[in-house]
Amino acid sequence: MTLSATTSEPSSAPVTPDPALDDAIRAVIDGKTKPLGALGRIETLAARLARLQGTTAPRMERCTLTIFAADHGIAAEGVSAFPQEVTVQMALNFLAGGAAANVFARTLGVQLRVVDAGMAEPVDHPALVQRRMGPGTANSAVAPAMSPETLAEALASGRALGADGDADACAFGEMGIANTSAATLVIHKLSGLPIATLTGRGTGLDDAGLSAKRAVLERAAARTGALPPEAALAEYGGFEIAMMAGAMIGAAQARRAVIVDGFIATAAAMAAQAIAPGCEAAFVFAHRSDEAGHAAALEHLGARPLLDLNLRLGEGTGALLAWPLLRAAAAMMTDMASFESAGVAGKT
Amino acid sequence: MTLSATTSEPSSAPVTPDPALDDAIRAVIDGKTKPLGALGRIETLAARLARLQGTTAPRMERCTLTIFAADHGIAAEGVSAFPQEVTVQMALNFLAGGAAANVFARTLGVQLRVVDAGMAEPVDHPALVQRRMGPGTANSAVAPAMSPETLAEALASGRALGADGDADACAFGEMGIANTSAATLVIHKLSGLPIATLTGRGTGLDDAGLSAKRAVLERAAARTGALPPEAALAEYGGFEIAMMAGAMIGAAQARRAVIVDGFIATAAAMAAQAIAPGCEAAFVFAHRSDEAGHAAALEHLGARPLLDLNLRLGEGTGALLAWPLLRAAAAMMTDMASFESAGVAGKT
Repeated sequence: MTLSATTSEPSSAPVTPDPALDDAIRAVIDGKTKPLGALGRIETLAARLARLQGTTAPRMERCTLTIFAADHGIAAEGVSAFPQEVTVQMALNFLAGGAAANVFARTLGVQLRVVDAGMAEPVDHPALVQRRMGPGTANSAVAPAMSPETLAEALASGRALGADGDADACAFGEMGIANTSAATLVIHKLSGLPIATLTGRGTGLDDAGLSAKRAVLERAAARTGALPPEAALAEYGGFEIAMMAGAMIGAAQARRAVIVDGFIATAAAMAAQAIAPGCEAAFVFAHRSDEAGHAAALEHLGARPLLDLNLRLGEGTGALLAWPLLRAAAAMMTDMASFESAGVAGKT
Repeated sequence: MTLSATTSEPSSAPVTPDPALDDAIRAVIDGKTKPLGALGRIETLAARLARLQGTTAPRMERCTLTIFAADHGIAAEGVSAFPQEVTVQMALNFLAGGAAANVFARTLGVQLRVVDAGMAEPVDHPALVQRRMGPGTANSAVAPAMSPETLAEALASGRALGADGDADACAFGEMGIANTSAATLVIHKLSGLPIATLTGRGTGLDDAGLSAKRAVLERAAARTGALPPEAALAEYGGFEIAMMAGAMIGAAQARRAVIVDGFIATAAAMAAQAIAPGCEAAFVFAHRSDEAGHAAALEHLGARPLLDLNLRLGEGTGALLAWPLLRAAAAMMTDMASFESAGVAGKT
């Protein structure tokens, strides 16, 4: 499908052409005390981060993780192996510091916050960022998940959250029972990739559950035709996916690296890129998830993720594990000696 | 080829069978607040680290990097794109904190030390650990690289260095112009893999240089027949490869995780495993290098590395980048909530 140009906003791409800067970045990398190209993808990453920040000396000191939690009306169709109350229970687990994302964030010095983008039940907790769009979306198998007005509000809230603070890199995670279903439908509508390719086991469906989920998603997808990006998000997205898409746009326009986690985050990234073309210059795809549709979605975007560790948890866990690579890449640019400065001989 | 059993030492393998502990580790992992298996290779890694330390609560707080530097007589055959003096120049770069390994180590809080295992010229520096086995090896294209006595001394020095201090994980790196040649010959003799498969461009040979290197290595390999592991190391190894093999054995027997870097470190790991069977229980293969023979060597060992970032620098840079994954894996075991402790519902 072709994305409707009229839904895209005026260009505010974070990176504009600058061949002189490209050359300067290349020269800095090639002058470092190592054989040409010997740091492989760390060099490519360093060049992208430098380009994003518009400098040969990029800074990657501070990373934050924002986890968006929300519920999904389509859970009523039995598409998840876990009951809906787990969304709230896991949000409380994040707030108590006990989830995988908390543990990884602590080992990496990453600050974490949790946003209620619209869980089924409100949670009263002083550290929970309240951005509730409602008590979960409507069931997108039978009706639009949210109204265009609610989508606009979710995107706007996300943009503000993506642009606030002073992080050099933003990782985004999510929690929401049934959100692989929402992500599948959003990616399907944005990319044209088949539902059958994109549908996976989520938190652990068995074969029968997987077949049933696929049938539900085929039926939901058939409810509409081709859709422009905002309409695809409103019809099928989750509040957390929409808010994350907004946050990715906000962070990218603030020239922060956006560390894209797994399947659901990739749905948000695909939507962000369709809504605000150019913001993908800030995207660093962290890992290839074990969720069935992720590889196809990445390929559609031409994205080659940094890690491939068979993760399929979400929460931003994969994005967190990629953060040290961004730090190393930027530090290579700023802290490593050159052949000249270190008095090391070059090739014979 | 078959490794001679008589060259192996009495078993002091760091890990012995303990099915009850295996079950306990599995139960801890499966009880954490995540879908079963959702942390993929982080879970496998966590189980290995727990097994190595003999506990369901492994500790991965402190990692050190030891870089072994040495020179190689076979450099006289023109097998490297860089001149031999670069070994000493890069050692000085490590000591000044300007190399990639220093920069990565600093971003990761890893302490680094540099060992002179036998560079062509001695270096007088207070921070350099002096374990010189000689002014570089002999040219193994025409004669044994070192005597059996020198090899024994290098291995013993390495063991002591691998076992000292209080690190939970040890990364090992190397610097030595022409050491991809030494590593190729060692791996060839230990594994039987063909020289043609194992020979790569090292620091950046062009096609003609690569052909010439291959011819030199074929000639060197033909100088001897099948060899037991110590003899292979003495005939073809470098001082840094031999000392690193010893260090890997020492660290493994002290039940420390040994983070194996790229092609040259894999030659040391293969030798360590042949000399002290069982020590591979401590090995965590960090990454798949772009050096041509690395993939084949890993496959021969049945090793699936954590990262694949097209690195080919050595110095332990790939091992460093894997360290945060070990930390995250251990922290998952010790710090993450269980379904029970967090009050999260299980599968429906």
